[in-house]
Amino acid sequence: MECRRVLRETGEPVRFRVRDVEIGGETPVVIVGPCSIEDRDMIIETAEAIKRIFVDKHGFRNVVIRGGAWKPRTSPYSFQGHGARALEWLREAGDKVGLPVATEVMDPRDVATAAEYVDIIWVGARNMQNTPLLRELAKAGKPVLLKRHFGATINEWLCSAEYLLAGGLEEVALVERGTRGFNEYARFSLDITVVPIIKEISRLPVIVDVSHPAGKRSLVPPLARAALAAGAHGIMMEVHPSPDKALSDSKQQLPFKMLEELVDQLRGAGLI
Amino acid sequence: MECRRVLRETGEPVRFRVRDVEIGGETPVVIVGPCSIEDRDMIIETAEAIKRIFVDKHGFRNVVIRGGAWKPRTSPYSFQGHGARALEWLREAGDKVGLPVATEVMDPRDVATAAEYVDIIWVGARNMQNTPLLRELAKAGKPVLLKRHFGATINEWLCSAEYLLAGGLEEVALVERGTRGFNEYARFSLDITVVPIIKEISRLPVIVDVSHPAGKRSLVPPLARAALAAGAHGIMMEVHPSPDKALSDSKQQLPFKMLEELVDQLRGAGLI
Amino acid sequence: MECRRVLRETGEPVRFRVRDVEIGGETPVVIVGPCSIEDRDMIIETAEAIKRIFVDKHGFRNVVIRGGAWKPRTSPYSFQGHGARALEWLREAGDKVGLPVATEVMDPRDVATAAEYVDIIWVGARNMQNTPLLRELAKAGKPVLLKRHFGATINEWLCSAEYLLAGGLEEVALVERGTRGFNEYARFSLDITVVPIIKEISRLPVIVDVSHPAGKRSLVPPLARAALAAGAHGIMMEVHPSPDKALSDSKQQLPFKMLEELVDQLRGAGLI
Amino acid sequence: MECRRVLRETGEPVRFRVRDVEIGGETPVVIVGPCSIEDRDMIIETAEAIKRIFVDKHGFRNVVIRGGAWKPRTSPYSFQGHGARALEWLREAGDKVGLPVATEVMDPRDVATAAEYVDIIWVGARNMQNTPLLRELAKAGKPVLLKRHFGATINEWLCSAEYLLAGGLEEVALVERGTRGFNEYARFSLDITVVPIIKEISRLPVIVDVSHPAGKRSLVPPLARAALAAGAHGIMMEVHPSPDKALSDSKQQLPFKMLEELVDQLRGAGLI
Repeated sequence: MECRRVLRETGEPVRFRVRDVEIGGETPVVIVGPCSIEDRDMIIETAEAIKRIFVDKHGFRNVVIRGGAWKPRTSPYSFQGHGARALEWLREAGDKVGLPVATEVMDPRDVATAAEYVDIIWVGARNMQNTPLLRELAKAGKPVLLKRHFGATINEWLCSAEYLLAGGLEEVALVERGTRGFNEYARFSLDITVVPIIKEISRLPVIVDVSHPAGKRSLVPPLARAALAAGAHGIMMEVHPSPDKALSDSKQQLPFKMLEELVDQLRGAGLI
Repeated sequence: MECRRVLRETGEPVRFRVRDVEIGGETPVVIVGPCSIEDRDMIIETAEAIKRIFVDKHGFRNVVIRGGAWKPRTSPYSFQGHGARALEWLREAGDKVGLPVATEVMDPRDVATAAEYVDIIWVGARNMQNTPLLRELAKAGKPVLLKRHFGATINEWLCSAEYLLAGGLEEVALVERGTRGFNEYARFSLDITVVPIIKEISRLPVIVDVSHPAGKRSLVPPLARAALAAGAHGIMMEVHPSPDKALSDSKQQLPFKMLEELVDQLRGAGLI
Repeated sequence: MECRRVLRETGEPVRFRVRDVEIGGETPVVIVGPCSIEDRDMIIETAEAIKRIFVDKHGFRNVVIRGGAWKPRTSPYSFQGHGARALEWLREAGDKVGLPVATEVMDPRDVATAAEYVDIIWVGARNMQNTPLLRELAKAGKPVLLKRHFGATINEWLCSAEYLLAGGLEEVALVERGTRGFNEYARFSLDITVVPIIKEISRLPVIVDVSHPAGKRSLVPPLARAALAAGAHGIMMEVHPSPDKALSDSKQQLPFKMLEELVDQLRGAGLI
Repeated sequence: MECRRVLRETGEPVRFRVRDVEIGGETPVVIVGPCSIEDRDMIIETAEAIKRIFVDKHGFRNVVIRGGAWKPRTSPYSFQGHGARALEWLREAGDKVGLPVATEVMDPRDVATAAEYVDIIWVGARNMQNTPLLRELAKAGKPVLLKRHFGATINEWLCSAEYLLAGGLEEVALVERGTRGFNEYARFSLDITVVPIIKEISRLPVIVDVSHPAGKRSLVPPLARAALAAGAHGIMMEVHPSPDKALSDSKQQLPFKMLEELVDQLRGAGLI
């Protein structure tokens, strides 16, 4: 493969800090928050619940708050996000609880705005090979999480990350979020072999989004346990104050109570 | 499915003209040209060969010249295209032979420039769900060919087209270009059921890119025959003056002689 | 690949006769009949319709009558076929109209019985790697059609054929019948690249089952045209006197009238 | 779905004992042994190592010794197993260490022989829909492990299990062993969502074969941890005295030392 900067054989594993959070280190990172930032109150309420569950209850601080401002929706008639306005709310929420925040960017013209408000930017599966976006992100210099497209090979994914590294950005992590398969009961297949494979071949941390493959919340806890037990550098998941009323992904977002039980369990098992 | 403007049940089949070329009508369209516009001479030479083979020899004028200016490459180290400069050459080549021209756009910021130079814009597989790009294209008003992502379902593809229709653009055609499969001898699997399926369920014309699934030129002629025999509204394929020296897709581009034999054959079989 | 007897580079293309029918020659073969042999009358009625449409109307004799006696059903509660008794009816029907007959065998213990009654035996997709069955078939010496499993690679398919060739059987043809994909409107994806690929790499004829990928009868005619235009050595399809009352595959079997129109069309286009 | 006996909603979870081993209970089962039983000494040596590592060192007795006698090989030129003779050796090895033994059967004519020698029979992925074999196994009455075909949906898999239940056999467990995907670094994709899904919808225990998706031994330990953390009722894996000299699957079988380290780790994490 000609994309070599991402390979383990060409350098030390990538490890970086975002405020007090470390990605790629010994302690897994948990990136958690609502699918969409639906309004100011809900993101603040969610951030406070996250702080209470992780930091106050368990003293676990390797947490990033996620929230979507520009949403990549299959249908043009679905809720498309509140854009830049939502980022103000997200920033406010993060500052209030003292945790870094992350959002998704789809449009290269939004990179600068996002970089102003958030600590980490992620690239969604559908934009994994949106090279103008990748180039813009490399220039912006903010840490990037790059999700794997649900139809992409490992090499295609690594080569997309290479666009970032070749553009001068080192603070990059890979996020597996499920691929197309033959499983009619899950939204996507979650190929767990990817975790040890990326750790063997790549310098980049590998994180697993356990909400998108699940498609329904009851699957999220076992997927979270599996991802961490496989050795992932972190997990990403969706939580919402009232999932059934969510404007997107209502079936897979966890309510706070379920998040709390999961965190208790993960801590109990020494997985985070 | 909530994406309904693309459905056959909501309106008449879409049929549109681009200069003298009709897309979605009785006569299939052939969209042909080099993968990348490598320099001014090669695109003019190619346009002239296309005119000679289709128009002069067979009186077949339903032809569009394609050429890539901004290339969506898996690796950042591959040739990325000459950008806007290449579009000038493409325009000149098209005008010289009296045929419309088409190019791919990946970046929403390039849509206006492309719309100035070309008659048709296509969206590559990797950007099928790049919604900022789709919205910009709907505004630009140029006819759009929307390729199916190699990991996308039919409904996801139709919903991406819906972004264009919902944005006010009616001149849209769908391009199947192969999907991931289990076939280790082709670059992609070409699911030919898609042709009659789209014709049954959608108002939009369906065109088959026969070069990208092939990955090698010997497969292109049988795939072209199959696509047209299945009832496709057209085919898209790559041709190059010296394929072995091409800067991209060198194995699948046809030399002029092979194109000529294929066109003779397609005309002989009444397929175009 | 270590399975080399199937490769084009190791010998001449395989071509064989079954009564007056040739498989692998210039004229494509059409293998047609009901999914299941439901009773004596229906298979005789179907054979007579086939003879009228192909032989009497068009003078086209390269036809084999197919009919299932042992059915590989996903569910144990679906109709499983009439077994050996159905083969008597099939033989009678074939003899009545002077055409060879074919059936599927799943159980190695049924091979001898099948070989007694029919001219050709096919191995269904689900048994492509049922090696005890393949070995038994190689010993029986009857011509075999080997369907590709819907999850198999090309090399796995070729290696299954190699079991037959290595066992001493030369009269083998490959049948593509669709593979798993991302197309929610077809039963299986029909990767048409397989036709020219097999012709390039293998000595064995390649036939396309156009009914199983379709899953619905309206798709069968375009798939038949595509398969033959791509260069297949034949097609396989299902026909039934009253498809809506069929005990299996009721949505994809063609009624006689539709078969007749399709045959008229294929003859008109010079495809058979 | 019409296959209902396998569903959770139609009865209590299936849980059964095989000698002192319980499958489907609280304690996960570990099914471990060589891919193929290559000779008498190697299976006895392996059984003794297994006993030492699991029973003697950790007091963990929920272990079954696996070994292949009839091998489903892609190529006819690969080692096909020693057949019935190998089962004698396997039985002797199991008796020597006091653990139950399991083997794979492909041919319905071998079921009776296998049932005489082993405690558990498994159906390999390639024979998941070999219905004559399933019917014969239901009659034999031995506990069966049914592997999922690498191209099968969940419902197809459950319906194959239904053949066993409908035939009167209740002692059935499902084994996930990886499916086709887009991952060029693993032999198969291991969709871990399958574990919680089967536990939600089915009465049958779900076990994960962690060797076959891996294809290389370094991936086996993380896959084993992930499968158990996801809640699987057990794992299945391959071990060999000298993997590099193995007649099959040489890259993925674990040497004893690696097995011992893995078992230490799984016990340490409370996963078995």
